[in-house]
Amino acid sequence: MSKGTISILGLGAMGSAIAARLRETGYATTVWNRTAAKTEPHVKAGAIAVATISEAAQASDIVVAVLLDHASVRENLEPAATELKGKVLVNLTTTTPNESRATAAWAADHGITYLDGAIMAVPAMIGRPGSRLLYSGDENAYAITKPALETLGATDFEGTDAGLASLKDMALLSAMYAMFGGVLQAVAMMRTVGVPATQTARDVTAWLSAVVPLAEPTVAVVDSGEYDPAPGQDVAFTRTAVRSLITAAREQGIGADFLEPLVKHLDELAATGRDTADWVSVIEQLSIAD
Amino acid sequence: MSKGTISILGLGAMGSAIAARLRETGYATTVWNRTAAKTEPHVKAGAIAVATISEAAQASDIVVAVLLDHASVRENLEPAATELKGKVLVNLTTTTPNESRATAAWAADHGITYLDGAIMAVPAMIGRPGSRLLYSGDENAYAITKPALETLGATDFEGTDAGLASLKDMALLSAMYAMFGGVLQAVAMMRTVGVPATQTARDVTAWLSAVVPLAEPTVAVVDSGEYDPAPGQDVAFTRTAVRSLITAAREQGIGADFLEPLVKHLDELAATGRDTADWVSVIEQLSIAD
Repeated sequence: MSKGTISILGLGAMGSAIAARLRETGYATTVWNRTAAKTEPHVKAGAIAVATISEAAQASDIVVAVLLDHASVRENLEPAATELKGKVLVNLTTTTPNESRATAAWAADHGITYLDGAIMAVPAMIGRPGSRLLYSGDENAYAITKPALETLGATDFEGTDAGLASLKDMALLSAMYAMFGGVLQAVAMMRTVGVPATQTARDVTAWLSAVVPLAEPTVAVVDSGEYDPAPGQDVAFTRTAVRSLITAAREQGIGADFLEPLVKHLDELAATGRDTADWVSVIEQLSIAD
Repeated sequence: MSKGTISILGLGAMGSAIAARLRETGYATTVWNRTAAKTEPHVKAGAIAVATISEAAQASDIVVAVLLDHASVRENLEPAATELKGKVLVNLTTTTPNESRATAAWAADHGITYLDGAIMAVPAMIGRPGSRLLYSGDENAYAITKPALETLGATDFEGTDAGLASLKDMALLSAMYAMFGGVLQAVAMMRTVGVPATQTARDVTAWLSAVVPLAEPTVAVVDSGEYDPAPGQDVAFTRTAVRSLITAAREQGIGADFLEPLVKHLDELAATGRDTADWVSVIEQLSIAD
C-alpha cells in the first residue's frame, strides 16, 4: 500500500538517498534526472522514471527538488511552471537565503505552494539518527508534507520567510568551518613538535567539547546590548591572549591565519577606546550594512 | 599536619585560587605579591606573607610562580636566583613556548630545577572537576611536585621540552578562539532576522557538539600525507560551499570575516591546480618557515 506518490527531481548522492528512503517508508516515487542513466537503479527498485519535469509534476502532488544549485532550479523548473501550478514544491537544493526567497517569489507568481529546505546531514545519514532538516516558507506546505519529510530526519519549521532555513543552515555551517579552521591551526602548531594530527585532534575534540557549552553564556551580552565584561572577558585581556597565541604560532613557524580576523577586530575596538568592553562586542563590527 | 610548605608567587585571581586550594588540601603556604595588600586574606587563612621572593624561596623547596607575564617572571625571579638554587620552580605564568624555554635555560644556568605549566581552567575551576593542567620540563620536578599539583586539577606531562605545555595550551586555545569566532559569525547572521544570540548559540552548541567529533577522522589525511579526498571533501566542493556561506552572510549585511582565511587558502589551492585534493591540505599552506 503506497502512502502516496512523491516526485523527486535530481538523483545526485542526496537526491538518490532521499528517493530511496521515501520508497523504503512506503511512498511511490517518480524520478527525474538530467542524465537519464541515474534513474536506472531507482526504476529497478520500483520507481517510475520520467523524461521531463512537467511529467514529474503531473505524477504527484508533492515535488521534491534536490538539484545542483539555484541556477539549475530556475532553468529546470521554469518550463514546468504550468504543470507545477497547485502542487507543493519542496526545494532541498542548497541555495543562499536570497536565492530561496527568489524561488519562493517565482513559485507564488505561478500558483505553486513553496517550501524551502536545508539538509543538515550527509546522504548516508538520511533517515538515520542525527539527520536533521530545516524548513521555511509556506506553513500549509509544511503541514501537508511533514509525514513524508519526517522519514528523512528530524524536521524544524523556521518560519514563513522562505530564506530562513537556508540562513540557519549557513549560519551553522559557518560556525562549523570556523571551528575546523581552528582545528587545523592547532594541528599545525603541534605538528611542529612531531605530534600526529589525529592525536592533536583527539585533544582538541576533548577541549572543544568542554568549551562549546560556554557559547551560550558567552554571547548572552549580545542580547542585552550592554558589553560589561565578566572578569577576564574584556577586549584588553582577550587581545593580549590572542596576540600571544599568534606569537606562539609564529615562533613555531606557523602562520596564525585563523586568528587574524579576531585580532583585527580586537585591535579596532582597542583603537577606538573600547578596551574595557566585553570582547564579544566584536560582533558589532561584523555588520557591513548601513 | 602540613603535607609540606609551598611558596606561591603572585596573588592575582589564579594565584589566589591556587594558594587557597593548596592550603585546603593540607599544604602550608608562603605567599608573595608585588602589592602586599593582596596577601592579607591569605594571611588570615593561615598563610605566611613575605616581602621578597628571596624569602619565599628560602621558605619552601617548591616555588610556584603565577605572575603577569614572561617579563615579570624574569624581572622578579632574577634577584632571587641564589636563593632559588636547588629548589623546584613551577612556572604557571602564561607565556609562549619560547618564553618557557628561555626561563628553563635561565633556571638551568642557576641550578634551579624547572617545571613549566599551563592551566586549562579559569580560577573558579581550580581543584574542581574539569580543571586540567599541562606540564613540561624536568621530569624529576614533575614527580616531586605531582602530589601537590594534582590537588589543582588533572595533570599531564607533555615532555621534557619546557615549551610543550605552553604550546599545547596555546594550540587548544587557538582552536577555542577560532570556534568562538564561528559562533559570533552564526549569531551575527541570525540576528539579522531577529533571532536572539542565546537562541542561535543553543543551536550552534547542539550542531558543534555533533560535528566536533568529526575533527579526528577529518584530519587523519594529514598524517598520511596523502590528500585523496573522501566524497564531498575536495577543495573544489569545499570552496564552493564556503563561498556560498560568505555570499549568504553578505546578503544579510554581515561580513564573513571568520571564513575569509579558509577561502583564501582554498583559492590558493585551486589556483595552483589542487582542486581535487582533500580540503584539509589547507594545513600545508600554514607554514611560514622555510
